[in-house]
Amino acid sequence: MHKCGRYPEKPATDLALEAALNALDDAGIPWNAMEVAYASHVAQGVSVGEAICEKLGMTGIPIINVENACASGSTAIREAFYAIANGVYDVAIVIGVEKMNRGVLGGAGEEGSLERELGLNVMPARYALKANKHMHAYSTTVEQMAKVSVKNHKNGCLNPYAHYQKVFTVEEVLASKMICDPITLLQCCPTSDGAAAAVLCAAKIVRRYNSKPKVFIAGSALKTEKYKDDADLTARTAKAAYEMAAMEPGDIDFAELHDAFTIGEILHCESLGFCPPGEGGVLVDTGRTEIGGDIPVNPSGGLQSRGHPLGMTGVAQLCEVVWQLRGAAAKRQVESAKVGLTHTQGAGGVCSVHIFKR
Amino acid sequence: MHKCGRYPEKPATDLALEAALNALDDAGIPWNAMEVAYASHVAQGVSVGEAICEKLGMTGIPIINVENACASGSTAIREAFYAIANGVYDVAIVIGVEKMNRGVLGGAGEEGSLERELGLNVMPARYALKANKHMHAYSTTVEQMAKVSVKNHKNGCLNPYAHYQKVFTVEEVLASKMICDPITLLQCCPTSDGAAAAVLCAAKIVRRYNSKPKVFIAGSALKTEKYKDDADLTARTAKAAYEMAAMEPGDIDFAELHDAFTIGEILHCESLGFCPPGEGGVLVDTGRTEIGGDIPVNPSGGLQSRGHPLGMTGVAQLCEVVWQLRGAAAKRQVESAKVGLTHTQGAGGVCSVHIFKR
Repeated sequence: MHKCGRYPEKPATDLALEAALNALDDAGIPWNAMEVAYASHVAQGVSVGEAICEKLGMTGIPIINVENACASGSTAIREAFYAIANGVYDVAIVIGVEKMNRGVLGGAGEEGSLERELGLNVMPARYALKANKHMHAYSTTVEQMAKVSVKNHKNGCLNPYAHYQKVFTVEEVLASKMICDPITLLQCCPTSDGAAAAVLCAAKIVRRYNSKPKVFIAGSALKTEKYKDDADLTARTAKAAYEMAAMEPGDIDFAELHDAFTIGEILHCESLGFCPPGEGGVLVDTGRTEIGGDIPVNPSGGLQSRGHPLGMTGVAQLCEVVWQLRGAAAKRQVESAKVGLTHTQGAGGVCSVHIFKR
Repeated sequence: MHKCGRYPEKPATDLALEAALNALDDAGIPWNAMEVAYASHVAQGVSVGEAICEKLGMTGIPIINVENACASGSTAIREAFYAIANGVYDVAIVIGVEKMNRGVLGGAGEEGSLERELGLNVMPARYALKANKHMHAYSTTVEQMAKVSVKNHKNGCLNPYAHYQKVFTVEEVLASKMICDPITLLQCCPTSDGAAAAVLCAAKIVRRYNSKPKVFIAGSALKTEKYKDDADLTARTAKAAYEMAAMEPGDIDFAELHDAFTIGEILHCESLGFCPPGEGGVLVDTGRTEIGGDIPVNPSGGLQSRGHPLGMTGVAQLCEVVWQLRGAAAKRQVESAKVGLTHTQGAGGVCSVHIFKR
């Protein structure tokens, strides 16, 4: 990975280069052994994967650029996973990168649509509606939501790759600038630059390279909405991933999920089956999603604290899961973690869930 | 397909919708049977595939956006092909779309690079150098290059989906505005909007749907440069596709290739093995690449006349090949065509070759 942050002078390809070199070094597999590269980003220009790989050395391999909004990185992982699982290639590198503009992320609704006229094309507004609905239906409190931010920022302090390493109290989170009621500034993910990369390889050759504990992909699912603002999207995607992995929510030791806004973590914990519907607020309240809890969520600091460079996020989640499953996550280590789950949700109505096991 | 042209009032998603509906209708397979969608475009925004599929009906399938400059469409075809060939899905739709800005396409060289300072970041300049080199090395003439434009515009007149349906003489091509010596305006592909789509399905189920002659993918290759302006890229990519198809250049009945500039067709004919190195100019001169010749090239009108909406091109080439191999290409039919080849080359140093057979 490349540490998330603000790098106005550093091109996206340089962020990605550093992440890629780190991944190759970690895997102990040389660049010229890569048989294919998948690059994920949203808005970094044309042939970005090719520009990154040029810096690594032009070896002539196929390079494929993949985009799926916030789920771009996880979509790239899935394409690489299937290509390898089906024997098209033995070794692949996946590189996710983004440099974000400042300000609020838009993206939803066509020009002139009612959605835009109502100001619902920006993300905080969309999540604020979800938050209000959840508060109304399940008596979820603003304090419970704020606790997601508090926990994830605390976790981020333990992650050298996180954009923010600063603790906040519930009171500070709630007192920060109101963005879209009830979502305050410290309940929104920051706009960060960053890059992450990972080397994927076929099970048959993975033991060839080094003695580090191996991490396997047990489940992979990618789905889109069946209706506008499809409330079942994450649950449906998770179901497919659980089925592929022959696992249940109870088998998951920890998760990296899409906490772009605090209500997101609460909703996704429910959809992923970590608690019954409506109890996501209580789940965080009782400390069960802390690193020491029974279902730690976003030990990396998540989108809230690590940051959310769109094309990077899915790949960064994978990095965190690999470190955790190897027992190499240092101060943020989830004890005896054997199975980790990643989840991303993207504008346009796309969701991806991966399950990794040691 | 959606006819290439200028559609300032029509969003890219509407162009793509029309192309997708045409493809579904042609295949005789309903939209809700699609198991995955691959969308290719270069600069149409975030989650474009999802926005197109929303108009077709939200069925919840995985949607993957793929970009590879001018080779975006062929990269999407390849991803879909491998997913199906490996049994991940049985039926996929590939949709390529682009609305182009007016003016000269840039894309090469980083900000502040020597390439940019010299003005070599724009495409006509890059191809002009190749043209001058070819003229110097092989005595290729400006008339021979102009004949590529004349032939392809003549072919385009027979294609209802082509942007331009107008014949030109060699004299008119050479007398048109000089863009970058020796490349004149009528030797550059126009900037067109357009969309193309195709339904791909597994061989085991293809006969289930209709009685139209079936077209199979026999070879698929995607490669990138091994050095800057890699002169061997197309030849190396073609070699891989020929090997996969167990074919030789002599087995190809016709080709749709990347004639963004007339010299491109001459160079690519050599690299694809349709004539010896240096004889691409003579090949077009002798009429062998005409529709009635022994190796017709760009019967659709090619990029020169059909147009080159970046994300569309690879998919549009596939459409032309399917029509030709079915014997359904009407006035531009290549007689008894059994094997067709498509070739795209993209900024960033990427090339794709596909071989299709009846």
